[in-house]
Amino acid sequence: MDVGSVQQAVQDGNRRFGAALARKSYAELAALYTEGAKVLPPDAQIVSGRKAIEAYWEKAATSIGLVAATLTTMDLEVAGDTACEVGEAELKLSSGRTPRVKYVVIWRRGDDGNWRLHRDIWNSLPGK
Amino acid sequence: MDVGSVQQAVQDGNRRFGAALARKSYAELAALYTEGAKVLPPDAQIVSGRKAIEAYWEKAATSIGLVAATLTTMDLEVAGDTACEVGEAELKLSSGRTPRVKYVVIWRRGDDGNWRLHRDIWNSLPGK
Repeated sequence: MDVGSVQQAVQDGNRRFGAALARKSYAELAALYTEGAKVLPPDAQIVSGRKAIEAYWEKAATSIGLVAATLTTMDLEVAGDTACEVGEAELKLSSGRTPRVKYVVIWRRGDDGNWRLHRDIWNSLPGK
Repeated sequence: MDVGSVQQAVQDGNRRFGAALARKSYAELAALYTEGAKVLPPDAQIVSGRKAIEAYWEKAATSIGLVAATLTTMDLEVAGDTACEVGEAELKLSSGRTPRVKYVVIWRRGDDGNWRLHRDIWNSLPGK
């Protein structure tokens, strides 16, 4: 599989991630992750598995008033059915604030050919 | 290459990481990373390349009084010459504090057969 197709799949995945978040469709958001995915949010324990990830995003997005996220890939490396993305996200909060974070996401291609988030970790950028 | 050997290599790498940090040998620490590695520390921009990583660790370790780090792998998945580790680190500061962080590290096997840190990102655990 060529890198260009994986880049396209990751870009699509990121666009869907933003769209699901904006619609507050947390089941749809969680379905973008693998069944065995792990999310590592700042100041929190590791969140394991799709069901827990759905609950995490619903709670987290509601508590900070997260209304949108725009994800931008800065670097993508592919190794077989695994891809490692480094990126930045601009968040939009209901308060009007737009904090930015940086992240590493490991994508995994499933037997169905779809690429899903398998490991997801982020932290803050300075000065915002 | 079997997963057991990679686990062993990662464990060795983590032990060396802790040892280099404890010795304040930042060049040695940086040599555990690939030439093209990226480090994503909280509240900071992305640090790219071995030379910048050496400078980052020297400055960061000095400024917070980091005297030791014990890294523990919680999960390791291997895809060819790439391995994705999820782990936790216990830090020891000169103040006596021992904050804990969680991390994702992408390891990459070089042409020399050595596994090195290629992507390195962490954030805080709650309550410490």
